[in-house]
Amino acid sequence: MPGLSEFELIETLLKPLAVNAPGAFALADDAAIMPEPLEGHVLVITKDALAVGSHMLFDDPPGDMARKALRVNLSDLASMGASPVGFFMALCIGRDTKDRFLKEFISGLAEDVERFSIPLMGGDIIRQDGPFIVTITAVGSVKREDVLRRSHAEPGDSLWVSGTVGDGALGLLSARGQLGTLSARSQAFLSNRYRVPQPRVETGLFLAGLVSACTDVSDGLLADVDHICKASGVGCRIEQDAIPLSPAAKEVVQSNKGLWQTILTGGDDYELAFAVPAARGAAITDLMRTGPIQLTRIGIFEPGSGTTLVHADGVGVHWEQLGFQHE
Amino acid sequence: MPGLSEFELIETLLKPLAVNAPGAFALADDAAIMPEPLEGHVLVITKDALAVGSHMLFDDPPGDMARKALRVNLSDLASMGASPVGFFMALCIGRDTKDRFLKEFISGLAEDVERFSIPLMGGDIIRQDGPFIVTITAVGSVKREDVLRRSHAEPGDSLWVSGTVGDGALGLLSARGQLGTLSARSQAFLSNRYRVPQPRVETGLFLAGLVSACTDVSDGLLADVDHICKASGVGCRIEQDAIPLSPAAKEVVQSNKGLWQTILTGGDDYELAFAVPAARGAAITDLMRTGPIQLTRIGIFEPGSGTTLVHADGVGVHWEQLGFQHE
Repeated sequence: MPGLSEFELIETLLKPLAVNAPGAFALADDAAIMPEPLEGHVLVITKDALAVGSHMLFDDPPGDMARKALRVNLSDLASMGASPVGFFMALCIGRDTKDRFLKEFISGLAEDVERFSIPLMGGDIIRQDGPFIVTITAVGSVKREDVLRRSHAEPGDSLWVSGTVGDGALGLLSARGQLGTLSARSQAFLSNRYRVPQPRVETGLFLAGLVSACTDVSDGLLADVDHICKASGVGCRIEQDAIPLSPAAKEVVQSNKGLWQTILTGGDDYELAFAVPAARGAAITDLMRTGPIQLTRIGIFEPGSGTTLVHADGVGVHWEQLGFQHE
Repeated sequence: MPGLSEFELIETLLKPLAVNAPGAFALADDAAIMPEPLEGHVLVITKDALAVGSHMLFDDPPGDMARKALRVNLSDLASMGASPVGFFMALCIGRDTKDRFLKEFISGLAEDVERFSIPLMGGDIIRQDGPFIVTITAVGSVKREDVLRRSHAEPGDSLWVSGTVGDGALGLLSARGQLGTLSARSQAFLSNRYRVPQPRVETGLFLAGLVSACTDVSDGLLADVDHICKASGVGCRIEQDAIPLSPAAKEVVQSNKGLWQTILTGGDDYELAFAVPAARGAAITDLMRTGPIQLTRIGIFEPGSGTTLVHADGVGVHWEQLGFQHE
């Protein structure tokens, strides 16, 4: 049992994260009062859980674990086009969780509370006999008519993605020492992409009201685009050669083409994938030039269902060559 | 690893719990949209975590665990005077969690979703190497000027409590077989009070805008009244003989006066403790006569700080006689 009491944790370490939320009452009441939404805005809420050993490695820096736990939720808010309002956290302190771990965890969290202007508004602390687990519920705000959904992509809309794809899943392999021949620099880049996602909050705010469907790439590009297809009742043709890879990911597939499978299905990228109606192409091209992050057109939605992977010439990709098992 | 996939859990078992929340999009989007609050209302949010082995016993019925997890959150909403809007749930499936456990858990949850009209709006499912853990975030709605806080009790206000006190903590002793000499009927009553709390949602709605401070009795009567005292900057004199006990709890203290300590500090009661200004006494007396649950006046707030326990004649209680250790 760590020496830090729940009282000390709350009073000393967590209360400072709540100062910018008057409705959190310094974490001293039974519940928090949410600020009233701006005129015409609605609140959106998302909740994610992460366990050490499952979603974070045992030797990941505790501060990075905290930032990941918050950021995967921020990524969900971004994919709805919402700006952060506040969050709630349950710390499930484990059998072997040390005081030092908790201090570093909360200190990493404090950095992101500042960086993303999202105050802690409440939560719970329990002790239990398993690994350290954290669950976070994040609240965001978005204009009602601008909410981004998965369900409104139309045939003819183009498919775009922010940033680069595949780094998260390759980063997990790298952090586990499974990409041994890769340059140290690329290893460090990829591991960091796995440990500390960059939620595309600003980009999501820009896309709100502009694009027809949006999701974040958390389950893997193919699966997440398929979520849009299913929700919208359309199909999608993705051009493999157009998928943006980081220099490190390019280095990986140059030596092992089979790792394309990891790139396409591994997930943990926390980029945004979205559908752009033809009439909105110019606005997106502007954002591509001036916005905070690279945006790339990688496919087109079409009548039908399911996701097809093609080369630039439209010829279907041989899945086996990308590391997929023959079914 | 249980045979139920995450997909099956969501599609088959959880989706039906979301049908009454259009903003939950059948649990198929990245986040949920909260309904717009009624004119003049605000949303309140609370979050609690429970682990098997810490907050629930390994052999508690899984359906009861689910109901407890939801109800401790409903109790927090009740203590703010809020009516339930929806909830988010993270299921952290453990090493030894069986499919049958999950089915019974969700089936118990479904009963309370119906009973308290609170739809599931989102969440997450993870697998991890520890005990089964569930965290729930509940959202409620209350008129802005009626929100119940801990912080507005005044000297001269009387202290009231709903239902009976001490059953939760005595119920844990009973469920663990530590109240062996008690009648079987009383054992069953107390265990049930521990396993399935009765959140005082209706009473909370009635008290909203009427009483000066409110909290739920989760940490133990003395600690929770002390929370009101600290937040309000007042003291409180509690009349021990006025504290309402169930027949089962009376049976317990008749044979062992030392268990008064458990009654006063054990917690897990999920009753409401609240401060009533003199001018509102008549309204509370009316509610006492006609409301769904017994309400009892047990003390008075006074200038100063801290909680004092007295007999009916005002003489201080000898703590040692109630099972407290001499400090």
